Amino acid sequence: MDNKNNHAPGRAVQAAFVGVDWGTSSFRAWLMAADGQVLAHTRSSEGMLHCAQAGFAPVLQAHLAQLQAPAGLPVLMCGMVGARQGWLEAPYLHTPTRLDALHQGAVPVPFDFAGHELRILPGVACTDARQPDVMRGEETQLLGAIAPDFTGSVCIPGTHSKWVSLQHGAISGFATCMTGELFAVLSRHSILSHAVEATEAAEVAAAAQVPDAAFLEGVASALREPAALTQLLFRLRAAQLLGHEQRADGAARLSGLLIGAELAAMRARQTAGDGQGVQLIAAGRLGTLYHAALEAAGFAPTLRDAEDASRQGLVQAARRLWLAPR
Amino acid sequence: MDNKNNHAPGRAVQAAFVGVDWGTSSFRAWLMAADGQVLAHTRSSEGMLHCAQAGFAPVLQAHLAQLQAPAGLPVLMCGMVGARQGWLEAPYLHTPTRLDALHQGAVPVPFDFAGHELRILPGVACTDARQPDVMRGEETQLLGAIAPDFTGSVCIPGTHSKWVSLQHGAISGFATCMTGELFAVLSRHSILSHAVEATEAAEVAAAAQVPDAAFLEGVASALREPAALTQLLFRLRAAQLLGHEQRADGAARLSGLLIGAELAAMRARQTAGDGQGVQLIAAGRLGTLYHAALEAAGFAPTLRDAEDASRQGLVQAARRLWLAPR
Repeated sequence: MDNKNNHAPGRAVQAAFVGVDWGTSSFRAWLMAADGQVLAHTRSSEGMLHCAQAGFAPVLQAHLAQLQAPAGLPVLMCGMVGARQGWLEAPYLHTPTRLDALHQGAVPVPFDFAGHELRILPGVACTDARQPDVMRGEETQLLGAIAPDFTGSVCIPGTHSKWVSLQHGAISGFATCMTGELFAVLSRHSILSHAVEATEAAEVAAAAQVPDAAFLEGVASALREPAALTQLLFRLRAAQLLGHEQRADGAARLSGLLIGAELAAMRARQTAGDGQGVQLIAAGRLGTLYHAALEAAGFAPTLRDAEDASRQGLVQAARRLWLAPR
Repeated sequence: MDNKNNHAPGRAVQAAFVGVDWGTSSFRAWLMAADGQVLAHTRSSEGMLHCAQAGFAPVLQAHLAQLQAPAGLPVLMCGMVGARQGWLEAPYLHTPTRLDALHQGAVPVPFDFAGHELRILPGVACTDARQPDVMRGEETQLLGAIAPDFTGSVCIPGTHSKWVSLQHGAISGFATCMTGELFAVLSRHSILSHAVEATEAAEVAAAAQVPDAAFLEGVASALREPAALTQLLFRLRAAQLLGHEQRADGAARLSGLLIGAELAAMRARQTAGDGQGVQLIAAGRLGTLYHAALEAAGFAPTLRDAEDASRQGLVQAARRLWLAPR
């Protein structure tokens, strides 16, 4: 458990709540002031998958102690902790749904520890039977990163990349691409494991430090042949067997093919033409890669930090719940 | 090792050669008469992956004994046994290549057992740097199943499905789709493992006994949105989470999506329109599924048995090598 604590005795600013982003494989908590200032934070790999076995309450208690969170402070959580397999199911809001109404769906969690009041923010579901889809955690990032009356498109890349359409601050629809997970399973479990150098992380992000030539060629191939993904994947292997490409480039090229396939799918879905603005909520190398790929696909991306977005979303919702009730 | 032996003492027909189809995960051998009659056969799961550890020669010796193959009989092999990771590399022929020239690329294998002469048929490579591709084993099926002067398209589904264009009996080009392998890794190692009932076999074939509604809907979805595969895959999971679809249908639907994506890719590649004839070389349930999917995609498939094709291809090549030298 990493932690950083500015919450020393004598500190002037008062803690107002604890925000928790609890994902499938990661945990992040922030001790927050009412004005959005971070007083202390912790993070660990105790995500939902870990806690489904080990229990959720002990993990949260340990982090609250680490943060030196005052007794009785409210705690607001988002992410997979609210899934059916999580701590307690927080039922999905249904599209269309305004982002500033997220807090109204927050579900109270029974938690007998130092008087803390606990709530989990809901995910969002698109229940249209023709294109059913679900998100948990990204809705909070949208609340934190997107202007209140925003209309347009947002891309949130990851294991399951989200593409969200907003109309005047409401989620009108969204789609998920399995991009990051495809990279992980193909590079570990398929014949492409022979075509890709071993990488430590499961994420597409791990594939390339900066958008190199192989990555951009992969993106271009997928954009040029948008229907040919299952074929382009095998071609990666064949090109190495025949000496046209190097194994050292395999991971970057695979990453480019999969991100390119995602962009081709989403470009086919867009009604607007070239140069369309897209808000890109991402962190680190994944942000760099998607920014380059989006530009290559003719989008005009604006990058926003993913962790900032989660934290700011929790602040917005906590204000409405506890700090400035309406 | 399964075996069936008609090769009893006093049998009138004389054995002329042994044909072996030695794939990644399977081994099949036939004791053949010069006229193509099968005198005995064996099969096992001692494929290339098994033998790369355990050795190739002992496996072949055991099967030759099982077949009661007379000493000195020539043995002709095809498939992954000739790959770089196989017994001995049989260099690829390059497109365009005539099928009736395959035997000229057969590589002799040192084998000191009962005077048998051993050869491995070559695979075929498409060395065009824009669409590099390789096959091993399918070229022998083509030789066995396709008329000598055939012009048209052939689909050979499997772990790595092949789509082959022929011009007057020569392979002019081909493409591979990772359809079967995608089904295997996604249903075992991704979040879709929660959306698919456990199946025993890795093949797409295992997904559905007959083309049921969920399979055909999957095919239709992929054909309707040919660029959207990474999105359609996640939608399968979301639709179950939201109660629109049943887990019992998950495997058939996933199989349909992946086969549909393959057909969409290949349809985009074809210059001809609806009703185009396609020779389909496949066995069992896989043949049934692809036949239905091809019809749904507007092709006019003709089904040919995959095992017959391999055996007949070995007969054709053996005749040219040993039985009726030109």
